Amino acid sequence: MNVDWSRITHVTKVDPAKSLPDDLEVLDGTDLIIVGGSDGVTAENTLEAVSAITESFPSLPVWQEPYSSDHVSRDTIEAVDYVSVPAVYNGDREHFVGKHVDLFTEVGKKPEELLGSSLPVVGSLVASKGEKAVSKLTEKLIGEGYVVQHLDSAAADVSGVETQYTPEQVAGAALATESFYGFPVFYVEYSGTYGGPADVEAASTYLSETTLLYGGGIDSREKATEILKAGADAIVVGDCFHDDPDRFRETIPA
Amino acid sequence: MNVDWSRITHVTKVDPAKSLPDDLEVLDGTDLIIVGGSDGVTAENTLEAVSAITESFPSLPVWQEPYSSDHVSRDTIEAVDYVSVPAVYNGDREHFVGKHVDLFTEVGKKPEELLGSSLPVVGSLVASKGEKAVSKLTEKLIGEGYVVQHLDSAAADVSGVETQYTPEQVAGAALATESFYGFPVFYVEYSGTYGGPADVEAASTYLSETTLLYGGGIDSREKATEILKAGADAIVVGDCFHDDPDRFRETIPA
Repeated sequence: MNVDWSRITHVTKVDPAKSLPDDLEVLDGTDLIIVGGSDGVTAENTLEAVSAITESFPSLPVWQEPYSSDHVSRDTIEAVDYVSVPAVYNGDREHFVGKHVDLFTEVGKKPEELLGSSLPVVGSLVASKGEKAVSKLTEKLIGEGYVVQHLDSAAADVSGVETQYTPEQVAGAALATESFYGFPVFYVEYSGTYGGPADVEAASTYLSETTLLYGGGIDSREKATEILKAGADAIVVGDCFHDDPDRFRETIPA
Repeated sequence: MNVDWSRITHVTKVDPAKSLPDDLEVLDGTDLIIVGGSDGVTAENTLEAVSAITESFPSLPVWQEPYSSDHVSRDTIEAVDYVSVPAVYNGDREHFVGKHVDLFTEVGKKPEELLGSSLPVVGSLVASKGEKAVSKLTEKLIGEGYVVQHLDSAAADVSGVETQYTPEQVAGAALATESFYGFPVFYVEYSGTYGGPADVEAASTYLSETTLLYGGGIDSREKATEILKAGADAIVVGDCFHDDPDRFRETIPA
């Protein structure tokens, strides 16, 4: 991964299943786009959202955060800068490691299909083609150590989260990310509700190489500032981008 | 981690609960010692084994691979070069992520205890002391992506392994290690039985930065050579070091 986080403090999470604001100029000042969601998301509407945004802001980095493999296609992979894949610490086994090994097993088995090549599957040709294709794909993958803290959310639902971490456990997961799993990003996700600064303060204590993101319920300058002061490298703003562009504008640091 | 793997092809796994050979010179030619086991292992006998070995071979690198936190003490941490911590892909949630977050939560909570400091727990003094202590400890941690392939083994038992991976799944776990979890070591463990070269061949296809270790049932020059030819960076030899030092000698590449 080669991202200059010193220039990224405001991230906009775009749900491709929701309609975009009429005037995309509201994005002026945000530093990164993450496209992803659960209900109704497809590779097609993901691609539409990415295209609309890159048309208005060609130099704005765009990631895709897929919830399921059918959100991903050869075209989506080529359209985005990175594909960010959550590993949910307080989720079930499937959503920290199970699905990931399945994904990489598929990638290892038929990379040429994944990248839409039509090369015949013959011997060393495909072996080499395969490994090239795999490295091409894996170069774009970014692991995100996730803690999903709003139990009554779609994010918690899809990742089997039944327990909210205490700030001490959040700090433990952050420390595990920094010194054991090595994901470049640690993400505190309050998905739809504002969690306040406690988890971010706890996590930031032990993060130096890892980038700390907070998302959830940020709809004002005050909340944005509180989370950044608590130690987040960047805030992630989603809902009000779709629902209330004026409030969204307030969350972008001047 | 700062280990020169180009010089390491033979690893000896020492079970501190078993007695050492009368003549430790049998270790001459092995490149790395990993001390660890399940039944009967304590921090005390771990320390004894480490001391005996470093006395005979002061420059031989020694790691500890603890199965449980009571195998670890401030003294064991200081006695070894690294503490290697397995994350078992085909184990239960606890043994890939659960116990690890618990460990790091403890580390984050009371590092001064973990490192035996007697500093009073007061404010920023401990905060800074704490972070120093944590980094001191975490510097020594090495994550190992593990696949435990012998279901009828203590290793499978303690880590909740109920399914053996196919070579394709082993390749998937290897690829996940290389490009997602970022453990510096990928370990194919046949614990007590010889698994042959298939899994090593499958895994080595997608590993470049990650070191590939194979352990299990190696008790001859032929098996040692077969696994190394299949693409393992190093073989791990355990049982016959304790049971049959002459056979053990045969496993050390000339």
